[in-house]
Amino acid sequence: MPLPLITSPSNPRVKHAAALRESRRRRKSGEFLIDGVREIDRARKSGVRLLEVYIEAEQGEKGLPTAPGAKKDLLDELERTHFPVWPVIRSVFAKLAFGQRNEGIVALAEEPARGFDLFESQLPENPLLCVLERIEKPGNIGAVFRSADGAGLDGIILADCGDDLWHPNIIRSSLGTVFRVPCVAASAGETIAWLRARHFRIASAICDAALPYSEIDYTGATAIVLGSEDEGLTPIWHDKGKTGPDSAAIVLPMRGIADSLNISNAAAVLFYHALLQREANRP
Amino acid sequence: MPLPLITSPSNPRVKHAAALRESRRRRKSGEFLIDGVREIDRARKSGVRLLEVYIEAEQGEKGLPTAPGAKKDLLDELERTHFPVWPVIRSVFAKLAFGQRNEGIVALAEEPARGFDLFESQLPENPLLCVLERIEKPGNIGAVFRSADGAGLDGIILADCGDDLWHPNIIRSSLGTVFRVPCVAASAGETIAWLRARHFRIASAICDAALPYSEIDYTGATAIVLGSEDEGLTPIWHDKGKTGPDSAAIVLPMRGIADSLNISNAAAVLFYHALLQREANRP
Repeated sequence: MPLPLITSPSNPRVKHAAALRESRRRRKSGEFLIDGVREIDRARKSGVRLLEVYIEAEQGEKGLPTAPGAKKDLLDELERTHFPVWPVIRSVFAKLAFGQRNEGIVALAEEPARGFDLFESQLPENPLLCVLERIEKPGNIGAVFRSADGAGLDGIILADCGDDLWHPNIIRSSLGTVFRVPCVAASAGETIAWLRARHFRIASAICDAALPYSEIDYTGATAIVLGSEDEGLTPIWHDKGKTGPDSAAIVLPMRGIADSLNISNAAAVLFYHALLQREANRP
Repeated sequence: MPLPLITSPSNPRVKHAAALRESRRRRKSGEFLIDGVREIDRARKSGVRLLEVYIEAEQGEKGLPTAPGAKKDLLDELERTHFPVWPVIRSVFAKLAFGQRNEGIVALAEEPARGFDLFESQLPENPLLCVLERIEKPGNIGAVFRSADGAGLDGIILADCGDDLWHPNIIRSSLGTVFRVPCVAASAGETIAWLRARHFRIASAICDAALPYSEIDYTGATAIVLGSEDEGLTPIWHDKGKTGPDSAAIVLPMRGIADSLNISNAAAVLFYHALLQREANRP
């Protein structure tokens, strides 16, 4: 039996959810919003706990040109499990949705726990990880998740990337892969300590390094470390005293006039190269 | 001697330039606008003919956090060559600038000629090219130029990518590398005919292909062909009768839950892999 249509933007449930568009409210409540069919579906399937779903009532099954049928499948599945789906009128939905590209569906979810213990428990032997340091643009963080998911990386450590890790643009530009790839947030110092205690090779991408990325061995436990396009990595990653004797400063050769690749492009090149090397060395 | 300050938005020079924000006017006039210090500088150095430059007068030397000094260097160089630089007041500049991120400088330029004869004359022996088919988002086209520039590709063929090839978002997301990487626009049919007549191997990225991208030989004249994330390549690229017996349908393995990489990420992986293979095989 469908829940009653919400027609008032001052409905307390709607007000609570809409407030989560603010970063501060997300952090305080431990809840966040997920826009879009694919993203909600990937969150569900990755074990994220959804609390409620809101759908734009007038839109019905329309407005989903990129995933025909997928919205209906998701709604059918939610109905089957008696999950609370609140229909809301368009003007109310507009308060809940993020940006222009909306698919008439938003979920309220509980922030998944993230810590090094959980992270470690999710890793296979000999993991290949990515560390992002001080990446602040949510779209860039999300794009790296998407590349990491595609290449089959084992996890991502967000080092000093701020504390707004459920920003709608991270979710969107990751296409929901942010829910699937194991992840932990920490400081750069904590990250290095954790990696060194587990004997990771730390491969830091540094634009004036001498060693091409293709000349190191990625077959052992390895962390590929990337900083921002403008600032690069902080000095700690340049210091072998800190990162360990087996660490390496690697460079992605730039053969044209620009001095760096976009971070998700650099990440994709390194991830796919490392995975190819690992496959070639698989017994 | 500086040119007089333009204070009226109905100044005919300003009206002509501002109208080039419209795609239709660009095509009709054969002129276009370039925003940003780095982009204008790269256009100049790549041989693009600049006609005039407009600078926001109040802004002076400020407002250039990403390239300190570079704007001054550019203005000094323009002055040295007696190039017409028009100072305009802020409200006039706002009519000329694109989007929010502006650096207080816009150039009016002549569209460079682009054709297969010129393109061919710019290529080395055994070229490595990229073909983009039906990519319509200017930001995606520009991002592929940036990856192509970084990896050192020899050129890009834009097949059926529309006719607005000097869109400000192409220029911006390419960081001005769109002026440096040789390029030609054509139809898919013309592209295949041109490639086959020159004995290129056509390597088409197709998401359900069986052959991993890493298993073909990129050392001869090769064209890496990419379509849109949503639609993929049109059937002509799947047909060996059309693309030639030596052509290959290649796939970038997707090891996670998402079904494709962002196009510029896929391009970066393929470009860097091909170049690495070429270097390893260099005598």
